[in-house]
Amino acid sequence: MTKASHQPADPDFERRVRDSFARQTVMHTFGARLARVAAGEVDLELPFRADLTQQHGFLHAGIVATVLDSACGYAAYTLMPADAAVLSIEFKTNLLAPARGELFLARGRVIRAGRTVTVCAADGLMREGAAERHVATMVGTMMTVRGREGLAG
Amino acid sequence: MTKASHQPADPDFERRVRDSFARQTVMHTFGARLARVAAGEVDLELPFRADLTQQHGFLHAGIVATVLDSACGYAAYTLMPADAAVLSIEFKTNLLAPARGELFLARGRVIRAGRTVTVCAADGLMREGAAERHVATMVGTMMTVRGREGLAG
Amino acid sequence: MTKASHQPADPDFERRVRDSFARQTVMHTFGARLARVAAGEVDLELPFRADLTQQHGFLHAGIVATVLDSACGYAAYTLMPADAAVLSIEFKTNLLAPARGELFLARGRVIRAGRTVTVCAADGLMREGAAERHVATMVGTMMTVRGREGLAG
Amino acid sequence: MTKASHQPADPDFERRVRDSFARQTVMHTFGARLARVAAGEVDLELPFRADLTQQHGFLHAGIVATVLDSACGYAAYTLMPADAAVLSIEFKTNLLAPARGELFLARGRVIRAGRTVTVCAADGLMREGAAERHVATMVGTMMTVRGREGLAG
Repeated sequence: MTKASHQPADPDFERRVRDSFARQTVMHTFGARLARVAAGEVDLELPFRADLTQQHGFLHAGIVATVLDSACGYAAYTLMPADAAVLSIEFKTNLLAPARGELFLARGRVIRAGRTVTVCAADGLMREGAAERHVATMVGTMMTVRGREGLAG
Repeated sequence: MTKASHQPADPDFERRVRDSFARQTVMHTFGARLARVAAGEVDLELPFRADLTQQHGFLHAGIVATVLDSACGYAAYTLMPADAAVLSIEFKTNLLAPARGELFLARGRVIRAGRTVTVCAADGLMREGAAERHVATMVGTMMTVRGREGLAG
Repeated sequence: MTKASHQPADPDFERRVRDSFARQTVMHTFGARLARVAAGEVDLELPFRADLTQQHGFLHAGIVATVLDSACGYAAYTLMPADAAVLSIEFKTNLLAPARGELFLARGRVIRAGRTVTVCAADGLMREGAAERHVATMVGTMMTVRGREGLAG
Repeated sequence: MTKASHQPADPDFERRVRDSFARQTVMHTFGARLARVAAGEVDLELPFRADLTQQHGFLHAGIVATVLDSACGYAAYTLMPADAAVLSIEFKTNLLAPARGELFLARGRVIRAGRTVTVCAADGLMREGAAERHVATMVGTMMTVRGREGLAG
């Protein structure tokens, strides 16, 4: 049930996202996983790690933002042409509750895809046992970059 | 030359910031350093690390945001009472240029300190040799939290 | 179907919102209407006016933000205690498409209500004939203010 | 003392800004004035008007944002090519203090001008007698639009 504005320009978008994610070194450093890829939607998962916490033992707000931003960027990237690269222009994160629990889930989606600029949103949830808590929300702007040497994916 | 609105409530603010930073585990994981602490101002430094990059080899926008957010949070914290804890309510980061170079500098400062809510800004620079490039800017809102069990620093 | 976190503290919240809206002079200057009030949700409507446009004849982005911010603020206000006032701490607006058409609709809702700080989102739609177009989205932070002289509503 | 990155593409930028401002109807509806135009910098002024206030008698946060956004947009526009139009992609406003007083000043400036995307900041001050108070701050992203029919200025 793809929205009309969420038509991927490249039918092979999932492979392209997986290839780029495999090269996004920080995701591997953190142990984050690509949980789901669909047209205009990407979910990432980060198992909780004590070495990514702030002074009270919660995941640092910036780590939350890192995973939300990647979810937004790859959601945008699903709809981009095969030769494009994606870069973040800006994002805002609102922190709703302390990010503690077992698993951090970032659910990114495209709100509007334009030729140059794509607006995305992402929600961040902490899962603990059977419970899920909404801990953060992001709206960000992603840029489609083409023809810039050395920038792909 | 402290602004009138930037009077620290606790003269021992520098020690308090250094103690809290020492407990902010993610900063140590990343190898970030507390470079400067003044009333309403905190600078952090992060030597470039390839394991914190995105798919094009730049520091991930979220890592940039993590260090900027900590600089904002600690700038706010310099002005808070001795028994307070600091939490991020929200921040927006605009990415100005790719974050590549040798050292990332985050310069955080208080724009306005209120009783509950403090607004901060931070600029992110990449240093490469003698050159510095402005790569990101943040404005964020920090909260003074008091009397919440288990939250200090 | 009120979310657990969206329990109004004051059962008489609708009257309180209507009274405050009646005193929000700029809404009357613009000809905006309170279209719907529910626990944690407020919709506003602004018939298009050529005197509120920017240089290309679209509603100015700031006018869009004004109505979205009021929708957010009153959505937050539905859940506040009877003696509270509401103030905006911050909001970000992403503009998705030019705001032209016959009627601007702002749909505000609470994402998370806290004791002092409430996070809200609002979507802005332009209606033209039978068509609706998503033209803007906002996430903002609202503050519950109590006991400050002269501030009510 | 123009920054290297703030070289206007069109030496006749001031006339272009003044022409566009004269067509930005909402500014005239509000009684706002173009106080200063320089390469990468635009100041606007809005004498206080009771018909643009919120429920406590302050200028509505959205009106503050409207004038700040126009200051940002025109600051960006000073550096754009002669055939370009300027549109807002997004802006965030942090409200620092109630906007009451005699005159609202919006000081906009370019932080970084790119080919398609320009990042700007603006500060909002309220003047009352000899006193000025910092009441709001904005960072926003502006787009250079070329070759889109019907969009100029």
